[in-house]
Amino acid sequence: MMVTARREVRTRGQGDAHDITPLVADLLAESTLAAGIAVVSVIGSTAGITTIEFEPGAVADLNAVFDHLAPRGADYRHHLRWGDDNGSSHVRAALLGPSISIPFAERTLILGTWQQLVLFEFDTRPRRRDLVVQLVGE
Amino acid sequence: MMVTARREVRTRGQGDAHDITPLVADLLAESTLAAGIAVVSVIGSTAGITTIEFEPGAVADLNAVFDHLAPRGADYRHHLRWGDDNGSSHVRAALLGPSISIPFAERTLILGTWQQLVLFEFDTRPRRRDLVVQLVGE
Amino acid sequence: MMVTARREVRTRGQGDAHDITPLVADLLAESTLAAGIAVVSVIGSTAGITTIEFEPGAVADLNAVFDHLAPRGADYRHHLRWGDDNGSSHVRAALLGPSISIPFAERTLILGTWQQLVLFEFDTRPRRRDLVVQLVGE
Repeated sequence: MMVTARREVRTRGQGDAHDITPLVADLLAESTLAAGIAVVSVIGSTAGITTIEFEPGAVADLNAVFDHLAPRGADYRHHLRWGDDNGSSHVRAALLGPSISIPFAERTLILGTWQQLVLFEFDTRPRRRDLVVQLVGE
Repeated sequence: MMVTARREVRTRGQGDAHDITPLVADLLAESTLAAGIAVVSVIGSTAGITTIEFEPGAVADLNAVFDHLAPRGADYRHHLRWGDDNGSSHVRAALLGPSISIPFAERTLILGTWQQLVLFEFDTRPRRRDLVVQLVGE
Repeated sequence: MMVTARREVRTRGQGDAHDITPLVADLLAESTLAAGIAVVSVIGSTAGITTIEFEPGAVADLNAVFDHLAPRGADYRHHLRWGDDNGSSHVRAALLGPSISIPFAERTLILGTWQQLVLFEFDTRPRRRDLVVQLVGE
C-alpha cells in the first residue's frame, strides 16, 4: 500500500534548517501502515534533506562547512546565465541531495534519539517549500 | 507493483553530466503505474546521481567544487593499488552517491521545473554506464 | 511484500569502514523476494552509508577528504553544547547520509563488481551500530 502527501514549509533563506520529523511521523500515524519506507523529497534544486542531530550547534557546523565549500559570495557560472545570486545554493543542494528514505516499523520511523529528519534551505531568499512524503508499506 | 528496467548511457569522462529525466519519465509513461517511487541507480563506483538545474553553468559550478575537494591530479592511495588514475573519481562518486529516490504521482515524476535528474560521470575516461530504474507503486 | 531486519555492526571509531554487502545479500537470499529495492539505513547521527570500491586505498582517500573538509580537531559549535568532541562526526554523517536504496533482481543486488555497500563510522569512539534493512519487492 502507498500513501502520498504534500506539505508546505516556509523557510527564511540560506542555512535555515527545519526539523521535519514530526511532520512525517504525523503522516505515518494518520495512515494504516505499520512497516515500510518513508521517502521524503523536497521539490526544487536549491534545498536538501538529510538527518542530523537537530540542535543549533550541529546545524551551524554543517552550514559552516557548506560556507567553506561553496561560499555564497564566490563567482559562479550559474550567475552568468540568469543574473541569479544563488550559485552556492545549487551546488550545496546537489551535494546533499533532495530526498531520503527512512524505514519504519510498528508505525514508528526508525531513527536514533539524536537523529532528526531535517530540511536545509540553501536558497538566498525565503521560500515556500513543497515536501512530498511517500509511504510505501504494509 | 514493480517495474525494473536497464538503460545504457555513454559518457565522455570526468565531469560529463547527463539529464536522465526523460529516460525515467518515458519508462514511467510506458508502465501502468500511477503513483509511487522511482529508484534510479548507476552501476559502478565512479559515477553518481543527484538532481540539479541542468544548465551548463550550474553543472560547471558543481564540477568546480569537486575539482577543489578531490583534485584529479592529487595523490591517492587508490592509485598505489591498481596503477589507476581515478582516485578522484572514487571519492567524488562515494560522496554524491549512486542512487536517488524520486516520488511520482498521476504518472509524473515530482520534480521542480528547474530540477532535473542528472548522472555525473566521474571516471577519467569515457564509459558505458548501466542505469537501473525500479518503479515501485500502484 | 516486505522484509524488515536489523543487524548489529561493531565499529572501531572515526574512519572505520565496513563492507555490509554480504550482510544485505544474505538477508535477500533468506527472503522469498526476487526483485525490488533494498533500503539500508544506519541508526544514529554520526555514521553514514554509501557505495565505494572496498579496498583500503579508496577508503583512505575518502577519509582524507573528510579529514580536510571537517577536521576532527577543529572548533565546532556542537562541542559547546554537550562537551562532546564529535562535531566532525555529525558534519560528515549529515553530508554522506544515513541510508541508501539499491535495486535487486533475480535475488541479487544490482551493484558493480568493484562497488560495495559500505558503512562509515564517523564517531570518535567505537560504537555498536544498528543497521536496518528493508526489502520491498515481489
